[in-house]
Amino acid sequence: MASSEFRIERDTFGELNVPADKLYGAQTQSYIGHRSVMNFDIGGPRERMPEPLIKAFGVLKKASAQVNMTYGLDEKVGNAIIKAADEVIEGKLLDHFPLVVFQTGSGTQTNMNVNEVIANRAIQILGGQLGDKNLVHPNDHVNMSQSSNDTFPTSMHIAAVVEINKSLIPAMTLLRDAMAEKEKSFQHIIKIGRTHLQDAVPLTLGQEFSGYVTQLTLGIQRVEHATKNLLKLAQGGTAVGTGLNTRKGFDEKVAKAIADLTKYPFITAPNKFEALAAHDAIVEAHGALNTVAVSLMKIANDIRYLGSGPRCGLGELSLPENEPGSSIMPGKVNPTQCEAMTMVCAQVMGNNTTITIAGSNGQFELNVFKPVMISNFLQSVRILSDACVSFTKNCVVGIVANEAKIKAILNESLMLVTALNPHIGYDNAAKCAKNAHKKGITLKESALELGVLTEQQFHDWIKPEEMIGPSDN
Amino acid sequence: MASSEFRIERDTFGELNVPADKLYGAQTQSYIGHRSVMNFDIGGPRERMPEPLIKAFGVLKKASAQVNMTYGLDEKVGNAIIKAADEVIEGKLLDHFPLVVFQTGSGTQTNMNVNEVIANRAIQILGGQLGDKNLVHPNDHVNMSQSSNDTFPTSMHIAAVVEINKSLIPAMTLLRDAMAEKEKSFQHIIKIGRTHLQDAVPLTLGQEFSGYVTQLTLGIQRVEHATKNLLKLAQGGTAVGTGLNTRKGFDEKVAKAIADLTKYPFITAPNKFEALAAHDAIVEAHGALNTVAVSLMKIANDIRYLGSGPRCGLGELSLPENEPGSSIMPGKVNPTQCEAMTMVCAQVMGNNTTITIAGSNGQFELNVFKPVMISNFLQSVRILSDACVSFTKNCVVGIVANEAKIKAILNESLMLVTALNPHIGYDNAAKCAKNAHKKGITLKESALELGVLTEQQFHDWIKPEEMIGPSDN
Amino acid sequence: MASSEFRIERDTFGELNVPADKLYGAQTQSYIGHRSVMNFDIGGPRERMPEPLIKAFGVLKKASAQVNMTYGLDEKVGNAIIKAADEVIEGKLLDHFPLVVFQTGSGTQTNMNVNEVIANRAIQILGGQLGDKNLVHPNDHVNMSQSSNDTFPTSMHIAAVVEINKSLIPAMTLLRDAMAEKEKSFQHIIKIGRTHLQDAVPLTLGQEFSGYVTQLTLGIQRVEHATKNLLKLAQGGTAVGTGLNTRKGFDEKVAKAIADLTKYPFITAPNKFEALAAHDAIVEAHGALNTVAVSLMKIANDIRYLGSGPRCGLGELSLPENEPGSSIMPGKVNPTQCEAMTMVCAQVMGNNTTITIAGSNGQFELNVFKPVMISNFLQSVRILSDACVSFTKNCVVGIVANEAKIKAILNESLMLVTALNPHIGYDNAAKCAKNAHKKGITLKESALELGVLTEQQFHDWIKPEEMIGPSDN
Amino acid sequence: MASSEFRIERDTFGELNVPADKLYGAQTQSYIGHRSVMNFDIGGPRERMPEPLIKAFGVLKKASAQVNMTYGLDEKVGNAIIKAADEVIEGKLLDHFPLVVFQTGSGTQTNMNVNEVIANRAIQILGGQLGDKNLVHPNDHVNMSQSSNDTFPTSMHIAAVVEINKSLIPAMTLLRDAMAEKEKSFQHIIKIGRTHLQDAVPLTLGQEFSGYVTQLTLGIQRVEHATKNLLKLAQGGTAVGTGLNTRKGFDEKVAKAIADLTKYPFITAPNKFEALAAHDAIVEAHGALNTVAVSLMKIANDIRYLGSGPRCGLGELSLPENEPGSSIMPGKVNPTQCEAMTMVCAQVMGNNTTITIAGSNGQFELNVFKPVMISNFLQSVRILSDACVSFTKNCVVGIVANEAKIKAILNESLMLVTALNPHIGYDNAAKCAKNAHKKGITLKESALELGVLTEQQFHDWIKPEEMIGPSDN
Repeated sequence: MASSEFRIERDTFGELNVPADKLYGAQTQSYIGHRSVMNFDIGGPRERMPEPLIKAFGVLKKASAQVNMTYGLDEKVGNAIIKAADEVIEGKLLDHFPLVVFQTGSGTQTNMNVNEVIANRAIQILGGQLGDKNLVHPNDHVNMSQSSNDTFPTSMHIAAVVEINKSLIPAMTLLRDAMAEKEKSFQHIIKIGRTHLQDAVPLTLGQEFSGYVTQLTLGIQRVEHATKNLLKLAQGGTAVGTGLNTRKGFDEKVAKAIADLTKYPFITAPNKFEALAAHDAIVEAHGALNTVAVSLMKIANDIRYLGSGPRCGLGELSLPENEPGSSIMPGKVNPTQCEAMTMVCAQVMGNNTTITIAGSNGQFELNVFKPVMISNFLQSVRILSDACVSFTKNCVVGIVANEAKIKAILNESLMLVTALNPHIGYDNAAKCAKNAHKKGITLKESALELGVLTEQQFHDWIKPEEMIGPSDN
Repeated sequence: MASSEFRIERDTFGELNVPADKLYGAQTQSYIGHRSVMNFDIGGPRERMPEPLIKAFGVLKKASAQVNMTYGLDEKVGNAIIKAADEVIEGKLLDHFPLVVFQTGSGTQTNMNVNEVIANRAIQILGGQLGDKNLVHPNDHVNMSQSSNDTFPTSMHIAAVVEINKSLIPAMTLLRDAMAEKEKSFQHIIKIGRTHLQDAVPLTLGQEFSGYVTQLTLGIQRVEHATKNLLKLAQGGTAVGTGLNTRKGFDEKVAKAIADLTKYPFITAPNKFEALAAHDAIVEAHGALNTVAVSLMKIANDIRYLGSGPRCGLGELSLPENEPGSSIMPGKVNPTQCEAMTMVCAQVMGNNTTITIAGSNGQFELNVFKPVMISNFLQSVRILSDACVSFTKNCVVGIVANEAKIKAILNESLMLVTALNPHIGYDNAAKCAKNAHKKGITLKESALELGVLTEQQFHDWIKPEEMIGPSDN
Repeated sequence: MASSEFRIERDTFGELNVPADKLYGAQTQSYIGHRSVMNFDIGGPRERMPEPLIKAFGVLKKASAQVNMTYGLDEKVGNAIIKAADEVIEGKLLDHFPLVVFQTGSGTQTNMNVNEVIANRAIQILGGQLGDKNLVHPNDHVNMSQSSNDTFPTSMHIAAVVEINKSLIPAMTLLRDAMAEKEKSFQHIIKIGRTHLQDAVPLTLGQEFSGYVTQLTLGIQRVEHATKNLLKLAQGGTAVGTGLNTRKGFDEKVAKAIADLTKYPFITAPNKFEALAAHDAIVEAHGALNTVAVSLMKIANDIRYLGSGPRCGLGELSLPENEPGSSIMPGKVNPTQCEAMTMVCAQVMGNNTTITIAGSNGQFELNVFKPVMISNFLQSVRILSDACVSFTKNCVVGIVANEAKIKAILNESLMLVTALNPHIGYDNAAKCAKNAHKKGITLKESALELGVLTEQQFHDWIKPEEMIGPSDN
Repeated sequence: MASSEFRIERDTFGELNVPADKLYGAQTQSYIGHRSVMNFDIGGPRERMPEPLIKAFGVLKKASAQVNMTYGLDEKVGNAIIKAADEVIEGKLLDHFPLVVFQTGSGTQTNMNVNEVIANRAIQILGGQLGDKNLVHPNDHVNMSQSSNDTFPTSMHIAAVVEINKSLIPAMTLLRDAMAEKEKSFQHIIKIGRTHLQDAVPLTLGQEFSGYVTQLTLGIQRVEHATKNLLKLAQGGTAVGTGLNTRKGFDEKVAKAIADLTKYPFITAPNKFEALAAHDAIVEAHGALNTVAVSLMKIANDIRYLGSGPRCGLGELSLPENEPGSSIMPGKVNPTQCEAMTMVCAQVMGNNTTITIAGSNGQFELNVFKPVMISNFLQSVRILSDACVSFTKNCVVGIVANEAKIKAILNESLMLVTALNPHIGYDNAAKCAKNAHKKGITLKESALELGVLTEQQFHDWIKPEEMIGPSDN
């Protein structure tokens, strides 16, 4: 490269060449490499710090500049920082954030990356020369009253709350509502129940779907509740939680500013030592995501089993045919949306292990697994959200009940015998079912053969439509 | 064994010999084995169904008998069942529950074990012959209006709520309060902060402990909140959730009776299909236990590191010396309570994986991983509770701060330089610290050598006692 | 209790009352409690140190005494220790080992428990007074040349190797052989294949079972290979791995003695520092158990799905009916052995997380999660072994293929169309299948309707019995 | 977009517009979306199918074409496919593979993506019109004798074996060798040992590092062994494992061709049913990666603790200073490479959970969690490899022992008392240590005060340099 393609930037370790078209400075450059050595060349572009976190940093730096101006930050500098931060929030500067997740465990390098990009962009806005720290300094101005140790966890919480509210809850609600539609339209269809995968007593297909609706409704509540502790922000704790180098009230003002910018009710964390040294709120919230994954795994599994076939499976449901299912078996259609969903669930469950391990390994005043925690957290939110939308649009809304098949299966079942318990006792009823099973005859034939009831009684007592709820008397 | 040591019991599969001194009947016997075949000889006595679950079944069977009497269950039979159930609740009959966790996934066998023991004990109470089902029938009377599919999850929830409230929350509160005492008594001790394990700016030892107190306080809230969905009981759903073979209102009455017996505000689950087919509430609640384990791992690790030494470690804290620490190194004392605690935490985190996997594998109308879920859940509650009590009594209350050592370490630190940032800027401050580190001199010596401040300024600006909070102006 | 029920024992912390009928001494007593304080009252009897570990300690103490006699240990004392150790190996003294898993992380307390019990039992054998350390001293004689830090990991490896060889490999082999029997007897039965749960091309039931046989055969190999690093013993490393207070050659002699006693080819670990500070060999070996659990989960799931029904499921297999399946649904029979097995698998997978976390948290010269690691490991071995035996005896050997049902299902399938690919191309074949599915007609009807082949060609080309392998030409 | 920017492609579902500059066809387009609906819009570009898998598919398609030509595939078509496949192998066509991991669980869509891209590129090479399937057909020619169900697992194994051999083993070897260098250069430095984090008996720093070297050497062996079952390829099983639509010998020939192309000794899997329906080999191999992560977590933790300070920690090692450590604390340097490594380890441990869950959920003839399994597997390989290299280059090679500090700490220790055991007995030795600790005096002062030895004896018996191994006599 020609030397004109670089400019020189300085940090406390000395001078470094930085690509002329990039806004970051010497510290960022030192992380991605100088000379022959790359400091954190781990994982490549797939492992870049997630976009929602970068945008959350934009929010934080904007809010900090606003508050810092009330404490004496030069207005011109402050306003330039705010403009630059707005561009970060809008996602315009993503190319200037090359750092990966597997860096220092405090995320210091990403905080400095943000400081440098915003400082240089602010310098541009002010008409200065890139790298002229006298105009806007990444540490003294952009990072004023801050430390990586409080900015990174603050941005973690902002990103988590924003993504949950913006993506996950709407996506889960979309799925829940689609399931509720199905519950309603299936409420008249009586079908065989299955426990232990074995034939059991009947219920309606609507009742079966009502279980899914309940799981999803509770799941939404779980996720909503999990954001409660995420609303508490570490900002103002600076290096170890004491708030050194901030002014009294800074923490509350910043939290207020962030709440105003995002419209979510963020507050300052009552204890900053906990907020830096532990990320229990992330572990807790991901526990809710893990529970949602557990629910979705069950639902998606049920639906693909109920849709299995078309001729050699259960075949109670028909799922939409979205694409050819096999490169060798012509005409095959597969429950691909269920499969995408269950793979997402397996990923989220593994992420829960990563986050648990990472969360438990904080030491003294700092947990240094921050980037891997938020990276896994945001992946879980993203893929759960996307999978809920995809599963809803490409599968759930198009599910059709095969009523004829459902009815035929139901009438085969021997477990309708359960309705006889109150009339002839458990032991006699068991004899009827076992005799029928052994001889391959119907339940009625078996009961009459054993002489435990009359044909009229059989018809009076065995009514699937009266077996789907408690009795009146 | 002489034949007089057995009696004959019958079930729908035929006759079986049962030990004469045991109250269980043919079905229980069939699970533990007949002739040369043992059906579920998995794991031995260590893996028996946990006691709190058996006791919870006692509560449920008592409540059910109370309600069933209002629906026509013979008073004499009902009252005998209630008396027998009381003995189960009191733990008097534990020898009669030999079954292990690794049985059928619905827990049917334990439900039948309970039915048989209570029936036979009720028969005894009524002066009858053991096994005389005409007097008290395990299915028709003790299990009246019930199914394993609703009794087992109901007992899971009862046991979980009782143990959390009776053991875990008091134990966590004990620990939190002991930590709060320490926080208070340590609030005047200024010490070095450590981030990335490296020397950082100071805080008080009380502030450090305040982080632990906050983690524990939030942990208690997490566990309390997690019981919310556990208060919803499956009872009344019977086989598949429809409530077949119950009467309208049975579910609410039973929940009310259980609430009255236990004094916890149990209610009937709004959707029984979800309550049988999924155990998301268990997964959710164990997510809270997992978060608590994450917190405790951090706390116990910190304390053993701060107590490391006595002469070659950090040595800021002295932990109580409870027992000889080494069979080869005389006089060695180890942080054994911290180690017991961290092992408990590792166990709970693994249990979280088991419960997650088990919870995700429900099918259609039933999840058949119930016993392994509740077994892991109750183990987590038990060992977390016991460990909190043990850790508090045998470690936390006896922690002593080594103030002289703490002070000596603090004065060594170069990171007091941070207080100079507002006065001489980040870059100059960095030079002071680096120069001191390189030459092995003190910070003051370095600063004066570099000429960035005067001795007076050094003393005015570097005051650890003013570095432990935000500044006033 | 009357004072005659106790005797006084002493350790370096002072005097303690010990129950007169127990062989352990002051140190063990101090762990289980003195005065009002219990040091490690965590989990109760369920959490006691597993028996195979105690027996392994017996082997180690015997071998050590043998070798120590060659280095000067008094013959009389040495032989008494050997006799006492034999009783530990035979399981006669289990009542004297009350300590739980959640103690110190080095297992020091269990090592001392063993030392004290063997010392006192040896004293008895020599006709002395319990507690008379002058005769046989727990540290100086029984623990001679040893440290908890090398005895505990040595016993972990002995117990793991013994249990794997004695229980797990035979149990897996029993299951594999039973499956191989089924493979053979099912080799003529052609059935529908299922991929994505959807109808696919045919295979034989024997081929399907051959997959299970292969999984189990590979599983046995995995477990066998995993013992390789477990054969390396830490003994001789003493406190930190250097072998301080041992004599040159002690490590190799002890390993040889243990190999002779157990008949397994134990050797001394080439590097003792690794052997004390890390338990990677346990993590590695449990990874093999985890893989086996993954295999068994798949197999047990398949079998219960193939046996689902009897009338509303797939119904291709009939599983043995071992016990009544429902307390409410008379005559119901469930795949309970499959359920016990899958619960075991979920437990093992969670244990893998615990062992992973515990294994990663060693520090400097010692990993202090030893007891929880071996406890989880031995539980996995035990329940996998027991479950394989139970599953084989109570389920696999009794599996019957429902040939009529299997044939009927096969003939329904549209995926036989795949055999037409080489003749009419993928796109035309897809049209046939889709047309048949849409109109509910057979494949032949559809193909003829579309005019892509003749009836004769259909019969020549679609032959399930020729679809179960590659073609000759 | 102008219509000229698209061309029309067809599949069995109908026609679709495809961007004119992309080589994929109708099926790929249908997965990424048509009209307003996107079928698998889950996770965005971060979740794209990993590059090594795409390249492995290139190898497989090339090998298949080679073999298919021996069975009659037109030479011209075959050679064009081979040329196109070469471009896939070289990574030239990555832009044409837009599909994400969360698709169908068989990876059918990626197999079709590959088929389409290679077909179209081959058409270009032959001078034809994109989409002209008469020239080269994605299914009939590129996918000849293949099914997604065997190609995807074959490509999984190829990618896994290649990446392990090409990246991971060299990276681990680099780290191991760097550690071995340190072991050698540190072999003369005697230092305090630490067990339970407490002062213990001495060892050399070289001995301490020898533990790490051993862990890494065994780790390399573990990974090497884990590839054994990965060398078995599913290719030839086609749809369900029977090999339908292949010719006898196809499987062995393809495996041979792949072995020749890659230079790794791939063979055909002896049982194809297992190879499609289970991915135990992936679970097994990732178990080895998990064990490596456990080792690396321990090593990286030790190094950062030994390097903690510089003045308020242990300070025995100096780690290289690579970049400014704090945005607020000037001059701070952190063990950032250790932190990146431990975050990588936490990620790998979580991936192990995902892979375990995914591996256990196969059904009948197919496991449909293939993409999420290989995606997690390849991420683990990549980040472990990169982290080993980064950790070696940027940390390990630059580690310096602070010999003065190490010596000063050692001389403080009371645990040198252990050397007195053989001379004055454990109980007397314990008294010396405890007395010294209590009074804050040296060990010698304490021993003399207690009168258990003479000054001369002290000097004769307490020699750290003689405490680092077993004694000669």
